[in-house]
Amino acid sequence: MPELKTGGAQGYLRIATEEAFAPPELMQAYRKLLATGSDDPGFQSLWGFYLGSKSPRAVAIIERLQDMGARRLADMDERGIDRQIVAVTAPGVQIFDRDTAVAMTTLSNDQLAEHCRKHPTRYTGMVAVAPQDPAHAAKEIERGAKLGFKAIIINSHTHGEYLDDPKFWPIFEAADAYHLPVYIHPNTPPKAMITPMLESGLDGAIFGFGVETGMHAMRLIVMGVFDRFPHLKIILGHMGEALPFWSYRLDFMHSATVRSQRYDFMKPLKKKPSEYLRDNFYITNSGVAWEPAIKFTQATIGVDNVLYAMDYPYQETPEEVVALDAMAMDLATKRKFFQTNAEIVFNL
Amino acid sequence: MPELKTGGAQGYLRIATEEAFAPPELMQAYRKLLATGSDDPGFQSLWGFYLGSKSPRAVAIIERLQDMGARRLADMDERGIDRQIVAVTAPGVQIFDRDTAVAMTTLSNDQLAEHCRKHPTRYTGMVAVAPQDPAHAAKEIERGAKLGFKAIIINSHTHGEYLDDPKFWPIFEAADAYHLPVYIHPNTPPKAMITPMLESGLDGAIFGFGVETGMHAMRLIVMGVFDRFPHLKIILGHMGEALPFWSYRLDFMHSATVRSQRYDFMKPLKKKPSEYLRDNFYITNSGVAWEPAIKFTQATIGVDNVLYAMDYPYQETPEEVVALDAMAMDLATKRKFFQTNAEIVFNL
Repeated sequence: MPELKTGGAQGYLRIATEEAFAPPELMQAYRKLLATGSDDPGFQSLWGFYLGSKSPRAVAIIERLQDMGARRLADMDERGIDRQIVAVTAPGVQIFDRDTAVAMTTLSNDQLAEHCRKHPTRYTGMVAVAPQDPAHAAKEIERGAKLGFKAIIINSHTHGEYLDDPKFWPIFEAADAYHLPVYIHPNTPPKAMITPMLESGLDGAIFGFGVETGMHAMRLIVMGVFDRFPHLKIILGHMGEALPFWSYRLDFMHSATVRSQRYDFMKPLKKKPSEYLRDNFYITNSGVAWEPAIKFTQATIGVDNVLYAMDYPYQETPEEVVALDAMAMDLATKRKFFQTNAEIVFNL
Repeated sequence: MPELKTGGAQGYLRIATEEAFAPPELMQAYRKLLATGSDDPGFQSLWGFYLGSKSPRAVAIIERLQDMGARRLADMDERGIDRQIVAVTAPGVQIFDRDTAVAMTTLSNDQLAEHCRKHPTRYTGMVAVAPQDPAHAAKEIERGAKLGFKAIIINSHTHGEYLDDPKFWPIFEAADAYHLPVYIHPNTPPKAMITPMLESGLDGAIFGFGVETGMHAMRLIVMGVFDRFPHLKIILGHMGEALPFWSYRLDFMHSATVRSQRYDFMKPLKKKPSEYLRDNFYITNSGVAWEPAIKFTQATIGVDNVLYAMDYPYQETPEEVVALDAMAMDLATKRKFFQTNAEIVFNL
């Protein structure tokens, strides 16, 4: 395997855009919630595994999540990652009651801001918010912008609720005001949809994450969020949670459904779903180090809309970086993918 | 728009492989179930719409579903469709209690066999079964094979249960014995997962269908059905319900999950999920008349595994046939797609 280095000798810097960290206090709070019994079966499944398993995978992830110092920087060096765009790991603060979530938001954002200040050439942060308190979330976005955060992280649903509900729109108003994109990261599906996935081991990153987050994005589209906030930018990982691949069917069936007035609440939109995907979404390849899917998405959504991500520490194999370096793709496009699209999206 | 004709002058016959019909008695039984109140919210949403709406779309679909005579044949002629592979529309008999399902299975299969006998050059049938009674389902497959049916239709879940449950495996044993592929057609998601889709109008073909059916196929894979039945062939519509696009992530996360023993019941498999997709699945483009997704699937799953479907009468626009005729694809591959793959899969 070729040696991977930072510094851009290959013609581009590598900026990884969906990278996770966890304050130790968050891991402690998760342990406490697991012990007392959360009423979210997805959380119990996901964090019951990561915090309870002795498997090398789980142990390494828990260690790496909490390390924003020497170990992470060495991992980045070894994998040739120049910069990480870092966010609190899913479900972040969104699993807690409102007061705990608000307190944990401040703590997490303060820690992340400090890590970014210490290593300004290596880390850029996304600000966490507590949708449980939309007014506080809006203020935290303002504070986050001043602290130098370059995006907002939302770990999908909050207690089974989605951002298409207008009560959450102060979050989008603040995103608009501070020109910050919103990264909608997967969460496990909520109680109201997880059962058939849970009983077959499909509730996590293998399948349920994509269902949950793709649905969240589609809810924003069909409920008219982008007609209300035309400048809003949403970032989706995991190759757009397959929405680019679905886009013909989304357009056909959305049009047929609206025309036949199947749902009172589903109103005509200004554009087709696929047009919102092109105009309001950026897509990262987190978890999908696979040239065919990357090229498909570049071709259908746009070469300016597709960004590199590693998904550290959940998926951190150097072989994937080598495979992506080796994609049969002209250098200008590869540079957009690895570097310059991220510089634009995150205003670096 | 160019005129569409049957007969193969373009270099291939057009065989449409996921086409729906409904016995009038089935529509009556659905009306009765809606009136008395089914406990399946997806059924209420889907068939409450089709049987209750005065929209041109709903009215035309209900009429066309029940017509296996002049109107359907004229529609096929106008759209240049040489042959339809026909199955009872979703959820077929699977919404009923066991006794009703068994009775309706016989009725539906008898009617479809008769239509195929009357028009042997235009129609080929799939045999419906009632998974509610696996032993009867196995016998109905035997009867179906003798009646000339060339595949088995399963409209995804049956009262929230999936075919990975070994109690359903007599169906796969019979499929194996009579060399019949199993078409897993979408159903609306079951009660245990539909709520967040229902409240946003995403429960039907626009999104929920794909989630439900992609999950069903993944359950078969991860629960080891293809290690037990290595010759079993499953057909998925709608471009494989996006599983081809997900295949890198499915492989990565399946391997990571099994290695770390996250679920007691998730055992190592003989192959990667993507290898089962290539070895045990055929994929039709029903609902997705879109060259990029078709070519992606041909490239990743195989040109011998991708078949044409129209999804009549739910999606029957001649413009889509014209667009597919015009794909930039060599004639030999296009002939596989439109004709010869179907001849092999359905043993025509």
